[in-house]
Amino acid sequence: MNQIKVIAFDADDTLWVNEPYFRETEDKFCDMMEDFLPHHSVARGLLETEIKNLALYGYGIKSMTLSMIEAAIQISDKTVGLEAIERIIQFGKEMLQKPIELLDGVEEVLQALQGKYRLVMATKGDLLDQERKLIKSGLVDYFHHIEIVSEKKEPNYQKLIQHLDIPPQEFLMIGNSLKSDIMPVLNLGGHAFHVPYHTTWAYEKVDHTIEHPNFQQLASIKEALQYL
Amino acid sequence: MNQIKVIAFDADDTLWVNEPYFRETEDKFCDMMEDFLPHHSVARGLLETEIKNLALYGYGIKSMTLSMIEAAIQISDKTVGLEAIERIIQFGKEMLQKPIELLDGVEEVLQALQGKYRLVMATKGDLLDQERKLIKSGLVDYFHHIEIVSEKKEPNYQKLIQHLDIPPQEFLMIGNSLKSDIMPVLNLGGHAFHVPYHTTWAYEKVDHTIEHPNFQQLASIKEALQYL
Repeated sequence: MNQIKVIAFDADDTLWVNEPYFRETEDKFCDMMEDFLPHHSVARGLLETEIKNLALYGYGIKSMTLSMIEAAIQISDKTVGLEAIERIIQFGKEMLQKPIELLDGVEEVLQALQGKYRLVMATKGDLLDQERKLIKSGLVDYFHHIEIVSEKKEPNYQKLIQHLDIPPQEFLMIGNSLKSDIMPVLNLGGHAFHVPYHTTWAYEKVDHTIEHPNFQQLASIKEALQYL
Repeated sequence: MNQIKVIAFDADDTLWVNEPYFRETEDKFCDMMEDFLPHHSVARGLLETEIKNLALYGYGIKSMTLSMIEAAIQISDKTVGLEAIERIIQFGKEMLQKPIELLDGVEEVLQALQGKYRLVMATKGDLLDQERKLIKSGLVDYFHHIEIVSEKKEPNYQKLIQHLDIPPQEFLMIGNSLKSDIMPVLNLGGHAFHVPYHTTWAYEKVDHTIEHPNFQQLASIKEALQYL
């Protein structure tokens, strides 16, 4: 643990609230489409459309908006009204303008760690939207480097660690997604702290638990300070 | 000129064909909407919608697709059929899957300059789409660093130049957009070569000509080799 020189933080649902806004929008979409199918079937149809489009569209609000429009047409068998399409576009615009709500303990942890470690933010998604959220968050000055990637897989972390000019064992990632924040980093020889968040997108869910000498399960981000 | 250490290339319409695909899609959209308004009025309505949404959506194909859907609803006064919405989604997906067509002389220039200068690619737009185009282009190995930004304005170039750890006068930008590639770099004290491209989006057009000691107007990218 005392080898660590750089600490990278995931942003969405690690530093600030994100996933609940997506789920709230999904709920509004499912409510709106209940004339055609029950709520849970609409949710399933939307998830299928989103996963089908993921390779082409990537993550983020614009991708979800386009997938909602496509799913609405399909679920309604081309009978949904244009008002529904307009409302979906509005859902997307509202999400893009949400305020940033920092999670409990985040500023305290960043304050305690700054100066002792190089702090990095590493997030995936839409470039403009992530930049906007970072500015709104007021956290930008804590970070030595901001990395916004299209995917958080091993090659992306490898490039980031290379770019930081450190060996993997000096790198620690803190995040809420076992799939995107923890497993790829452990596989590369880095360290990882998992801070679970109460809401996770179905596509990011991982069933198993992790046992690894470089891994630490935390109950909250504040617990990170006990190990650093 | 002999101070230059890093050469940054714009990508879209400097290294490869891009804007014609957007204009081709715009034409298809205008044709489809001609039941409601003449071609040029549809084009104007779409541009207005795109510019209105630019701060929120940013650049790129998904942004254009969402703006086409919004414009179709508005232009038709909410009477357009869902088949039109479906076609627009299809237009977007087709654009995302276009092959990459390198512009004339690009590989020759990169080959001649590699090793002598640090080469960088600096482009704006959608992260995933730009990464995909770079991979398809086969040019990735020429570049020491890839920078994909949400905007190409002075602060973005300032950050890039800082990141490259050079003074601005060692930086040269080559690109087709006076607004995004040339003017911000000259303002920062860097060098810039303009390689015009036959198709420019109305929003990127600049009327005046540039006279500046660090500026060079080229007729084609191959002419860059005469100055380097």
